[in-house]
Amino acid sequence: MTGKIITISRSFGSGGHTIGRQVAERLGIPCYDKELVNQVAIESGFHADFIEEAGEYAPVTSSLLFNIAVSPNPMSAVHSMSMADQLFVCQTNVIRRLADEGPCVIICWCADYILKDREDCLHVFIHSDMEHRAERIVRLYGQTKQSPQKRLTEKDNKRKVYYKHYTNRNWGDATNYHLSLNSGLIGVDKCVDIIADVAQLCK
Amino acid sequence: MTGKIITISRSFGSGGHTIGRQVAERLGIPCYDKELVNQVAIESGFHADFIEEAGEYAPVTSSLLFNIAVSPNPMSAVHSMSMADQLFVCQTNVIRRLADEGPCVIICWCADYILKDREDCLHVFIHSDMEHRAERIVRLYGQTKQSPQKRLTEKDNKRKVYYKHYTNRNWGDATNYHLSLNSGLIGVDKCVDIIADVAQLCK
Repeated sequence: MTGKIITISRSFGSGGHTIGRQVAERLGIPCYDKELVNQVAIESGFHADFIEEAGEYAPVTSSLLFNIAVSPNPMSAVHSMSMADQLFVCQTNVIRRLADEGPCVIICWCADYILKDREDCLHVFIHSDMEHRAERIVRLYGQTKQSPQKRLTEKDNKRKVYYKHYTNRNWGDATNYHLSLNSGLIGVDKCVDIIADVAQLCK
Repeated sequence: MTGKIITISRSFGSGGHTIGRQVAERLGIPCYDKELVNQVAIESGFHADFIEEAGEYAPVTSSLLFNIAVSPNPMSAVHSMSMADQLFVCQTNVIRRLADEGPCVIICWCADYILKDREDCLHVFIHSDMEHRAERIVRLYGQTKQSPQKRLTEKDNKRKVYYKHYTNRNWGDATNYHLSLNSGLIGVDKCVDIIADVAQLCK
C-alpha cells in the first residue's frame, strides 16, 4: 500500500477536521471536505448547505413524506430513491473519482467504507472524551440553548445511525481503521505527527 | 495523566502480546501477562491453565451445571457466584493492586475497563486483518485441523461475549482506548514506537 489516500472519520468536536487539514498540508497533498460538498452540489444539483446537513444527518429511512417534501417533482419522488440515498450514491462516485486522481486527505463521509477495497488507503478515526469535545465546540462555535453535552450526544447518535444504515458497520469500531486516536489525550499536533509518519512509512 | 500504566487489549494473532512486552522493555517497566495469571492462581486457588482458559473463554452465563461440574463442593456452588465471576473479581483486585504499585504494562484481561477511572493510564487496542493474523498464528503455533480463519473467528467471538458480559461495552470500540493500531499495516516495531512515544509524551 502507498498510504497516500488518507480518510479521516471523526467524532464531532474531536478536532478531526483540523488534524486532516494539517496532515494534508504536511504531506503536500489536497484535502477534501468542503470541496467534496461543493463537488457533490455541482453533480447532484442540490445546494451545498442541504448536502452538508443531509449528507450526515438526514433521516435515513426512505421516508415518502421526506421525499415529497424536498423533491422539486413530488410525484416522481414516490417511485424514486430517497434524497439521502441519491446523495450517498453521488458522494460515493465523487470520492472514488477523487481517490483515483491521486494522493489526498478525505474527511468523513463514510470514505473509509467507500474506499475499503483499495489497498493504497490509510483509514483514520479521531475521537475524544466528552469533556474535551464539549470545551472545544463551545470555544469554536459558542454556546447554544442546548448544553454542549446534549449537542454532542445528538450528533453522535445521528452519525451512528447514518453510518450503520449505509455501511452495515458499527461507527467507531477500531477494526474499520488502521489508526484510531484520542485527540484529547494525545493532542492535535501529535496526532498529525503520527498520521503523517505512518502514511509515509507505508508508502 | 502520567501515561505510565499502559493496558494492551488485542485481537488474537495481532501481535499485541509481543508489542506489550517490547513497550515495557523500552520504558523499563514491568509487563504483566503470565505473571498476572500466576498471581490470580495464588489468590484464587485455581490452576493457572484453568484461569487462562476460563479468564477469557469460559461460558459467561452463570451456569448452574458449569458451577456444579467444576466446584469442589457442588452444593455450595448452587448459591455461590459462578467460577467465571469469581475469577473476574479476583483479576479485578489483582489488576487494581498492580496499578497502585506503579508504572507497568498490563496485557488484556479487560484492564482498560477495570482501570477506566484512573487518569494515569494509556489504554491501547491492537488489531489486524484476518490475513495477517492467520499467517501469524500458523507461523507461531502451527497448523491445526481447524483453519486459522475459523480459529480466529471463534476466539474473537468468545472475547466479544466475555468483554460485553463483564463491561457492558463493545469489544474493539475505538472510544474505549486512547490508541488503536492495525499492527498488520503499521508493523510491530512502529506500533512499539508510537505507544512508547505517546506514553512518554503524556507523562
